[in-house]
Amino acid sequence: MIDLRSDTFTKPTLAMRQAMFDAEVGDDMVGEDPTVNRLEAYCCELFGKQAAVFCCSGTQSNQAALWAHCRPGDEILIESHGHLANYEGGAPAALTGVSVQYIQGVGGMLDLEHLKGRKRPPEQHFPQSKVLCLENTTNIGGGRAYPLEQLQRVTEWGRSNDLICHLDGARIFNACTARNYSPAQVAELFDTVSICFSKGLGCPMGSMLVGNEAVIQRARRARKLFGGALRQSGIVAAAALYALENHQDQLADDHRNAYRFAEQISQVPGLTVPMDEVETNIVFIKVSEELGTAEEIANRFAALGLKMYDIGPQRIRAVFHRDIDAEMTEQAAKIVQQAIAAAV
Amino acid sequence: MIDLRSDTFTKPTLAMRQAMFDAEVGDDMVGEDPTVNRLEAYCCELFGKQAAVFCCSGTQSNQAALWAHCRPGDEILIESHGHLANYEGGAPAALTGVSVQYIQGVGGMLDLEHLKGRKRPPEQHFPQSKVLCLENTTNIGGGRAYPLEQLQRVTEWGRSNDLICHLDGARIFNACTARNYSPAQVAELFDTVSICFSKGLGCPMGSMLVGNEAVIQRARRARKLFGGALRQSGIVAAAALYALENHQDQLADDHRNAYRFAEQISQVPGLTVPMDEVETNIVFIKVSEELGTAEEIANRFAALGLKMYDIGPQRIRAVFHRDIDAEMTEQAAKIVQQAIAAAV
Amino acid sequence: MIDLRSDTFTKPTLAMRQAMFDAEVGDDMVGEDPTVNRLEAYCCELFGKQAAVFCCSGTQSNQAALWAHCRPGDEILIESHGHLANYEGGAPAALTGVSVQYIQGVGGMLDLEHLKGRKRPPEQHFPQSKVLCLENTTNIGGGRAYPLEQLQRVTEWGRSNDLICHLDGARIFNACTARNYSPAQVAELFDTVSICFSKGLGCPMGSMLVGNEAVIQRARRARKLFGGALRQSGIVAAAALYALENHQDQLADDHRNAYRFAEQISQVPGLTVPMDEVETNIVFIKVSEELGTAEEIANRFAALGLKMYDIGPQRIRAVFHRDIDAEMTEQAAKIVQQAIAAAV
Amino acid sequence: MIDLRSDTFTKPTLAMRQAMFDAEVGDDMVGEDPTVNRLEAYCCELFGKQAAVFCCSGTQSNQAALWAHCRPGDEILIESHGHLANYEGGAPAALTGVSVQYIQGVGGMLDLEHLKGRKRPPEQHFPQSKVLCLENTTNIGGGRAYPLEQLQRVTEWGRSNDLICHLDGARIFNACTARNYSPAQVAELFDTVSICFSKGLGCPMGSMLVGNEAVIQRARRARKLFGGALRQSGIVAAAALYALENHQDQLADDHRNAYRFAEQISQVPGLTVPMDEVETNIVFIKVSEELGTAEEIANRFAALGLKMYDIGPQRIRAVFHRDIDAEMTEQAAKIVQQAIAAAV
Repeated sequence: MIDLRSDTFTKPTLAMRQAMFDAEVGDDMVGEDPTVNRLEAYCCELFGKQAAVFCCSGTQSNQAALWAHCRPGDEILIESHGHLANYEGGAPAALTGVSVQYIQGVGGMLDLEHLKGRKRPPEQHFPQSKVLCLENTTNIGGGRAYPLEQLQRVTEWGRSNDLICHLDGARIFNACTARNYSPAQVAELFDTVSICFSKGLGCPMGSMLVGNEAVIQRARRARKLFGGALRQSGIVAAAALYALENHQDQLADDHRNAYRFAEQISQVPGLTVPMDEVETNIVFIKVSEELGTAEEIANRFAALGLKMYDIGPQRIRAVFHRDIDAEMTEQAAKIVQQAIAAAV
Repeated sequence: MIDLRSDTFTKPTLAMRQAMFDAEVGDDMVGEDPTVNRLEAYCCELFGKQAAVFCCSGTQSNQAALWAHCRPGDEILIESHGHLANYEGGAPAALTGVSVQYIQGVGGMLDLEHLKGRKRPPEQHFPQSKVLCLENTTNIGGGRAYPLEQLQRVTEWGRSNDLICHLDGARIFNACTARNYSPAQVAELFDTVSICFSKGLGCPMGSMLVGNEAVIQRARRARKLFGGALRQSGIVAAAALYALENHQDQLADDHRNAYRFAEQISQVPGLTVPMDEVETNIVFIKVSEELGTAEEIANRFAALGLKMYDIGPQRIRAVFHRDIDAEMTEQAAKIVQQAIAAAV
Repeated sequence: MIDLRSDTFTKPTLAMRQAMFDAEVGDDMVGEDPTVNRLEAYCCELFGKQAAVFCCSGTQSNQAALWAHCRPGDEILIESHGHLANYEGGAPAALTGVSVQYIQGVGGMLDLEHLKGRKRPPEQHFPQSKVLCLENTTNIGGGRAYPLEQLQRVTEWGRSNDLICHLDGARIFNACTARNYSPAQVAELFDTVSICFSKGLGCPMGSMLVGNEAVIQRARRARKLFGGALRQSGIVAAAALYALENHQDQLADDHRNAYRFAEQISQVPGLTVPMDEVETNIVFIKVSEELGTAEEIANRFAALGLKMYDIGPQRIRAVFHRDIDAEMTEQAAKIVQQAIAAAV
Repeated sequence: MIDLRSDTFTKPTLAMRQAMFDAEVGDDMVGEDPTVNRLEAYCCELFGKQAAVFCCSGTQSNQAALWAHCRPGDEILIESHGHLANYEGGAPAALTGVSVQYIQGVGGMLDLEHLKGRKRPPEQHFPQSKVLCLENTTNIGGGRAYPLEQLQRVTEWGRSNDLICHLDGARIFNACTARNYSPAQVAELFDTVSICFSKGLGCPMGSMLVGNEAVIQRARRARKLFGGALRQSGIVAAAALYALENHQDQLADDHRNAYRFAEQISQVPGLTVPMDEVETNIVFIKVSEELGTAEEIANRFAALGLKMYDIGPQRIRAVFHRDIDAEMTEQAAKIVQQAIAAAV
């Protein structure tokens, strides 16, 4: 079975397991876990930020950021497909009482023309616009990586409209790989950045939120409320440290495999894959209605040993990651070709 | 000054003031205000519902309904322009912790083709779809009144998808007037209906939420939390009773005035008023970009003695009500013509 | 029937009704109601504060204040019997997400010895202490009025502990009457003060929150969320203006009646009324267990034409107000004597 | 340094680390982690419940339970020292909007005489009493273990008052050890039980919530919202499985050490340790004011190599656990004796 459902399915390697086995630990709730402390310091350095808090998941670091930035009656601005507003259980409203202003962008990315006039006037009929949330790379929006200039002008717009800027960087290392900028170059544009270790980096769990001292101190409070303040979490922090030091480089392979896969299946009649949008490890495949629904086609693939999620009625997503090598990529493309050939 | 900003600007008449002066009162918090009790019973009868709770405003009855129906982590489905999700301060998120799924309809109205597939699967990534919210007449959506058959099939879709159906009936009497159905015919399709007395009916304040015993009991709890449980509120309930008995019929005049106004200004170059969409007391005017922005044009009107709100960059709203008679309507149309003539 | 259940049962007089009849009104949501504006300005003057917002009820002004001051995860400190934490439906938690630290005082009043060490350390296990809430007069705590010096030292403690100070002044005019200080002398000690018009002042509804510009602006936002932003609310604001100008002086009569009543029934075997605690219009009567429960005794009184609430298993509350004159007071005392005589 | 601050400081053993190294894993968010699934099944069996959800921490499982059981405006009833209402950051209010009714018990334990009359009447002035929360063993309340009969009659009272019963079982295995009942005997009395793996059981992190299918499904939703839904969490679940199979028996040693320590220091002048209250692994030491404050005395201990927390102004807590053996226990008692001798 070739599993392209998500890069969250990556499993820890033996070397990563060894790092966890060897981890020096303490009680992180009182700040005494040396491995967690080392990981937080590492991320501060890498992202050029004052402070960092180790969270359990990307959802936790995103929602802790919103809780730290906002009060009930505030509003966040986000592209229509944004993960933190669409795939985190309704947490912005449920946990923080904030409204969401969905803004249609391109490939999940926002630019100035989408944002003009979207900051709410300070009027009691409206929630108060408070945080501009970007996602890089975009996930459901299209697996796209923002050009640095676009990030610069969009966050500039945010700041000039008194908005806090938060980046959902669940796949920030994929963006850095694709666009050749550094984490710090991106992070300096944002008040907070969330990072995920359990996607392409291959850790079993874990995320980081970076920002200035004050906001991270408040996010720490959110982490505690959410039940994310752990004890000897150095065990899992060790995996994250290992991944940061050893797994970043391999993301380029995932991108190559994704592109190779996209190229091959883009020839298949009934499937559309806009090659100029394949920038990272995520490939979206549009299924023509003649072939059937995305769900039906995904089931056909699964029957032949290839798992992918249908996202929307005619849209299938393939995600490449460190547990999928070049050979499996070729094999996956062949299964797609076979399945469609049989379907026609 | 002719004020077409909103029908909320209507002022109580002398007769309505006399009704308030004469009102028999008690402490409504303990259920002892006879006038409030009479008004609640009157609305139960009129809308064919078991129970009713007198609220301070349409916002309060809408949000009390959501609070009664939902839990944090739930979601409401609503047309993109819906008042309770766009103009009530972000209350669904702030007070009840519910997310909003905005659905683009036509003229602020939803139909089956807009709703297909919008009920969320029972999956933890998503908030739980819980309430389908309609608005009749639609306000910002276009001042439209739903045909009864459309209400029937849309609420039928809601029920068959296990959704509670709530109607924001801030202008339900305008809808009944325009479409010639009764309040009870509409209300039987919904679990709860909110009604507003301080719009076309001309009361100084007040709203009602109707539904079954259980939901109204819970909404009463919300009303108390929100600080809407009053004491001798028979004073203002008396105005509502007076309006229900005396002001409903005059809404037809408001619709005629609105239509007459629309007809006249739809001839003005640079202004677009789709006459087949003018169904009630609300008229939307599209301003061509050559003329300027809606804000600029509204300012020109104001300078000549005519107030209207700009709603969106090229859109102006005119609302007709019992304090605007036929003569003022003619005068308003003339001011529009003059102002635009001067602008060109 | 003599009704001593609460001063919320007071009914508007003819003169007050006339003031409402005559009220000049506008749309308060957009700040155009001249009577509301006049009332807000009057209260600013009377309490020596920058800004004021007219609310529907004491619950609304209290909870709007908390919403303006706090964020979820904050905590308020309040005496164990405090109304806003015990009788407002759980609103601090439900609407604002704040925890309550209940502190046992004396007669519902706090002093330094109760507060020492109660400010939480800035540690993530604890909510963040944010607002010190006092109540004057105390209601369920005992109907007591704070001496000015006690208010000064307690609020001084609050400020020196970085706590915002809020006063629930539902019966602030009773306190001023009893202790001979001015509203402004009290208000200068607090960041916000809520005032109620529908208790001893005899209005049908209405409350005011006063404070500085920034906090009142945010409370206005809360008022909108809660559905408390009204339209031609000048009608009811007129009653409040009338009461402020005409009903304050009569509170002294209520206090005299309360004291006279207390004196008479304190002689009754089985009832205990500590006379040195009868300071305002509220009298608490302790019922000996030999006589029965408070509920049983209250029922005996009611059977003879005297209504009072049982508050706790052996405690009955009598509240005097402008609809109870000296004669009714004598009559009430006689009914108590008779009922107890019959009970023994 | 001998560390008696908490049993949360226990570190994973080599064997436990090996179990984590060897763990079979999958993506638990989609239910595919075999080790998590095995742990959840194991806990269902052990506690005799239908369903279980693996959480990150005791705070998370407690608050997920409240979120699953309650709606804003509800209330929980809990003993005054209860952890989930006092040491979890104000989460009941902040995350779920529930109020807390604190009830003074004995040693942190409630009995019928404390509960009588505490269920709120169904009246809109009050939040709605919804969940009765017990803690076993009690932590700050006194480290006490409920007798089974007391649990039976208290939960019986809860059920007969239509209250849901939740047990904070952070140290449930200590209670079972001390009182000689089984986890299932306790769990059958409750709707939900939270269990913690990172205290006496010695795991780096992790907790479990058990209950029926419906409530656990809703708690799973809360876990997702809180960011507690992880990926390859089999790594840490493996530690919990290892601990359940290997570490339960050793809790008796911790209790013996605690008792031995208590006996020795109870002779020390100025310290009070009520021996009949030392039932589990937690010892509370009352410090006489002549000796100084708890904080000062704890600092003296620390200077000699013994860490304990001061809990309250004259109260110090010592917690025994698997990283403290009999010899260290003797040593700890000697340090106490020395420090006090020097202090006098």
